Parts: sequence; structure tokens; C-alpha cells
Amino acid sequence: MIYKESKAILQSIKQAKKILITSHKEPDEDSTGSILALNLALKKMGISSGLICKDKAPENLEFLPNIKKIELVNFKTFDFSRYDLMIILDSSSWGMVVGSELKDKSPNIPTIVIDHHASNQAYGKLNLIDINATSVCEIVYKILFDWGVKLDKDIAGNLLAGITGDTGSFRYPFVSAETFEIAAKLMKAGADRDKIIYNLLFSVELKELKYLSEVLKEATIDKKNKIIWAAIPYSKYVKLGKPEGSGFAGAFFQTVKGTKIGVFMVEKEKDVVDVSFRARDKIDVSKISVSLGGGGHKKAAGVTIRSMKFEEAVELVLATARKYVK
Amino acid sequence: MIYKESKAILQSIKQAKKILITSHKEPDEDSTGSILALNLALKKMGISSGLICKDKAPENLEFLPNIKKIELVNFKTFDFSRYDLMIILDSSSWGMVVGSELKDKSPNIPTIVIDHHASNQAYGKLNLIDINATSVCEIVYKILFDWGVKLDKDIAGNLLAGITGDTGSFRYPFVSAETFEIAAKLMKAGADRDKIIYNLLFSVELKELKYLSEVLKEATIDKKNKIIWAAIPYSKYVKLGKPEGSGFAGAFFQTVKGTKIGVFMVEKEKDVVDVSFRARDKIDVSKISVSLGGGGHKKAAGVTIRSMKFEEAVELVLATARKYVK
Repeated sequence: MIYKESKAILQSIKQAKKILITSHKEPDEDSTGSILALNLALKKMGISSGLICKDKAPENLEFLPNIKKIELVNFKTFDFSRYDLMIILDSSSWGMVVGSELKDKSPNIPTIVIDHHASNQAYGKLNLIDINATSVCEIVYKILFDWGVKLDKDIAGNLLAGITGDTGSFRYPFVSAETFEIAAKLMKAGADRDKIIYNLLFSVELKELKYLSEVLKEATIDKKNKIIWAAIPYSKYVKLGKPEGSGFAGAFFQTVKGTKIGVFMVEKEKDVVDVSFRARDKIDVSKISVSLGGGGHKKAAGVTIRSMKFEEAVELVLATARKYVK
Repeated sequence: MIYKESKAILQSIKQAKKILITSHKEPDEDSTGSILALNLALKKMGISSGLICKDKAPENLEFLPNIKKIELVNFKTFDFSRYDLMIILDSSSWGMVVGSELKDKSPNIPTIVIDHHASNQAYGKLNLIDINATSVCEIVYKILFDWGVKLDKDIAGNLLAGITGDTGSFRYPFVSAETFEIAAKLMKAGADRDKIIYNLLFSVELKELKYLSEVLKEATIDKKNKIIWAAIPYSKYVKLGKPEGSGFAGAFFQTVKGTKIGVFMVEKEKDVVDVSFRARDKIDVSKISVSLGGGGHKKAAGVTIRSMKFEEAVELVLATARKYVK
């Protein structure tokens, strides 16, 4: 057994009659890949499960095996009573699943939480939180190993997509010899790496590159505090065609010599600022993020600042960051 | 035996008295990592060898174990007669080692050529050309396996750096289950992945990001021919502080939806234009490059156009590219 929790999770699943699997809102490669892989694995084991999410996955994930099975739901009216077990992947809090407006309305059915965020609140009846895993897909790989499930092409493809996405193609922290071994095994089980790379990393819109160009133009180093940062106001965001991919742009902010952290801010709605923190050095940026009400990992974290003027939000974020880099 | 050539190469090495190891001019991660790893492995086997190169490796490779052992030489006056065997890594032609001005002056000692470029001319006495390998470091790993050499931390570190560099961190073609397995083994042998990532990918100069910003601003799609391209003239290149990293910028040119190839051109000296081709689709860009006098791989190739006005060079390159994408 890799995880001591694997057995209890399997027991709960086998005892349930109607299982629901979900991930966080605004799903990414890892959350989408992991729920799809778990659903396919359960199906192989003769257990059926429903797949739901608050938001649609980005267009470039449409190639993921079985993605059409994910039902988009409105959590305000969703009837949990039709189910007797919910498995929540890649979500450090209930609010991440349903959105902040519903964060205090817990579902009235038992939940299993599987996650790798250090900020996870262990809010499930059963919790498997491995903060050293690169991704939830890596955790699901290990759970399936513990359960003795043989991988097929589709399960492997979903898992490799999640690992590739959440590691920025094996660049980010926590990638270990074991992560590479898992990637090898997933390819041997049929995962199409070329297709994953093509869709995840080589399918950028020209407007995203133009956005990146503008973001990098704005990039400024606060030399005293060793912070590199950029902030895009709503007017500019609209002018650039409301591009996706703030993560794409933010990734550059941990690569620059002479800096400890990178901060990228974009006002995606009026008075709503998305903030990404990236650590280049040994600073734990999740602390900055958590102190502002957000979450995330040591090396990559984020928060959304609401109901605050752009300039004030930028000043608040930078002032907070400066305190933590000292 | 992974390579049938491994045995003959080992015999030649054991028979030699004075061995010289070299890579191409303007060395990168893979050429530097592979010559360092081979030198360290030979040393472990009780065989001493000299390490030379025409040019200094980029500053961000200074962390590579033993890099100070590489002697910078002037090939015009270099005395090959002190040696009786030369091993040339990662260089598709003799000109790539010594520079175009000396390309017709072959060394008067036996040579072993180890490479992964499809354009390699097999110009050695012994040649091991594996065009399916991600990198020469992957080839060296396999040769050392064939020879039964146990890896240590320093050999493994150099090899993982080369593989990471030449695959753009496991993104580019030819990365196989085996490549991931090798990466796992190198980490288990002590290769410090975090250090490699920090130095190779997270040590960018701010001026390189500003350069990237300008390059992306210039990026244009030729919709009819599905080519994305940009060209930076000498005046602009100087204004931007003569940044390194045209490869860094060029890498974006294979990621854009609706395109087949990317072409990035920069006039680094007056009337000397560096051209990088990147294939996003099934086009073999090495053919475009070779037809202009350059070389490279199917998915990434390059050429330097000399003694031609910038505008003419740009027009020539685009006209040639258009012929091949049809």
C-alpha cells in the first residue's frame, strides 16, 4: 500500500450506491484529468459514478478521454440527495468546488476529499491529502495502484495530462524520480504524450501571446524586496480581448534572476483582481496568499481580491508580499 | 547492448593514449553536459581525457559538475598531434565544431562522432548517430549502460541537465517512456533536478523577458501559409541590449493554434541573420533549413544567413518556408 487511506476509501466506494465525483470550479488539467481517470477506473471495477463540475473545462482539454461525460451543474439548485457519496478531487475547500457565494452550504452526504494542496482543510469524512504529490493525478495513480486496477489507454492519458499540466511539464517542485517513473508507466499503458503536449502546451491563441507580450512589457523588479511583478487593469484586459491564460503569463514570474518571488495581477472584472504568486527562492508564497484569503502551494499560490479598486488591491498585495519576503 | 557501436567505441578508447573530447561551438546544455559526463565516466574507468570547446558555455551552465575542466581553444592554431583520438559530441559536421571558416580543415587524428542530429554527415572514423534520441546525453547514458559504468551524482547531474535542456523539460518530440525512465534513474543516482531547473529554466535575465515581449509583439501569422513569424533587425537587437536566448524566444513559435510552423529571425550582427524554425505540425523543418545551408531536427532546425541585407534575408527565408509548407 502506498497510501494507508486507500483501503478505507475503497470500502466507502464499494458500500455506496450512487457516487458523485467532482473537482474545483474553473477546472484545469489536473482536476479534470483526475476526475475522468477515477470515473473510468471505477467503471472498470464495475462501479458507476456521476461526474459534475461547476464550470466547463478549457477548450484545449476537449481531447481528454471521456470529457463529454462531465455534467455542468448549478450548485445552488443541485440535488445532492440523489447520491450517497461524493468524491471531491483537487479542491482545498468546499468553496473551491461551488464558489465563494455557497461556501458555507456543505453537502448533506458523506464526502471523500483527495487533494495535494497544503492549504486543504481536510473537510471530508475521509481525507487523503498528500502535499508532496505533484498533482492529484499522481495521487490517483497511486490509489489505483493500491487498488490493483490495471491502467488502460484512457485512464493513463487523463493521468499523464494532469501530471504534465500541474508540473508545467516536469518543471515545478515535487517532481521526483517516482514522478518520472509514473510518467513512463503511463506512456507504456498507452498515454499519448505527443497529443497531450500538443493540446496543453502547443495550442496557444495568438491573442494569448500578445497578452504575454504586454504582461512582460509591464514586468518590473522591486530590487529592494526582490519581487518581480506586473498588474493589468480591467481596461487593458478588455483591450487585449479578455485572454485566458493568466497562469501561462504568471509562470514567467518565477524565472527571473535577482528575484525571490513573482506576483502577477489582472483585473478580470471591474474591482475583482486575480493574483498569482510564484516563488523562485525558498519563500513560501502560500503564506502570502493565505493571509489575503487565498490558498495554494509553497511555490505557486493565488487569491482573488474582490470589491476593491484596482490600484488599492495592487498596493495591498505588494505591501503584503513585501512583509513576507523579509 | 543498447547500441551495437558501443563495443567498438570502447575498444578505440582503450587503445588510445591521449583522448580529446569536444562538442560544437556555442555550446548548450546537451553538448556541455554530454562532454562533461563522458569525461567523468572515462575518469571512473581509469582513462584520462582532455575537454575542449571553441566557445565558453553560457553563464547559467556554470553549475554543471566539472565545467571548469573545459579548455577554450583556438582551432586555427590548435595542435591535434598531441592526441591520438578525438570524440566529438552533438555536432552534425566538423564545421559545427570549429566554425564555418575552418570547416574544410579536418583534424589529422581518428575521430568518433556521437550525435542525434538527422543532418549528421557521419564524418567520423566511428559514428554513433541515433536520430531518435532526445539528446546526446540520452545516448551517452545508454553507452555508459552498455559499458557497465555505474553512474555517480556528477555524471548523472550532467546527463539530466542535457536531457532537460534538449527536451525543453520533456516537452519536445522523441521523449519516450524510456526517456522518463532514464530521468528517474539519473535522479536516483543523485542528479539534483531542482538545481538544474533553477539554473536552466528559472535564471532568466529581465532583459531576456523584455526581448521576448518585443518578439511576441512582432509575431505575425501568414494565414494563407499557416506560418507564424517574427524578425528582429540589428538596430532593434542592439536597442534591446543584445540579449541571449533566441532559442528561448523561438520556442513560442511552435505553440500557436492555426499554424504549421514558426520562424524566428534575428539579425545579431549587421547582415548576419540567425534563423530558427519550429514545427508544430507534421512538417519537417530541417528540410527548409538544409535547403538554406543549415541543419537540425525535424521539429527544430536553424541556419545563419550571412552577407545579406536583413530585409532580403527575411524575404528569402519566408519564400523558402512557404514552398515547404505547401
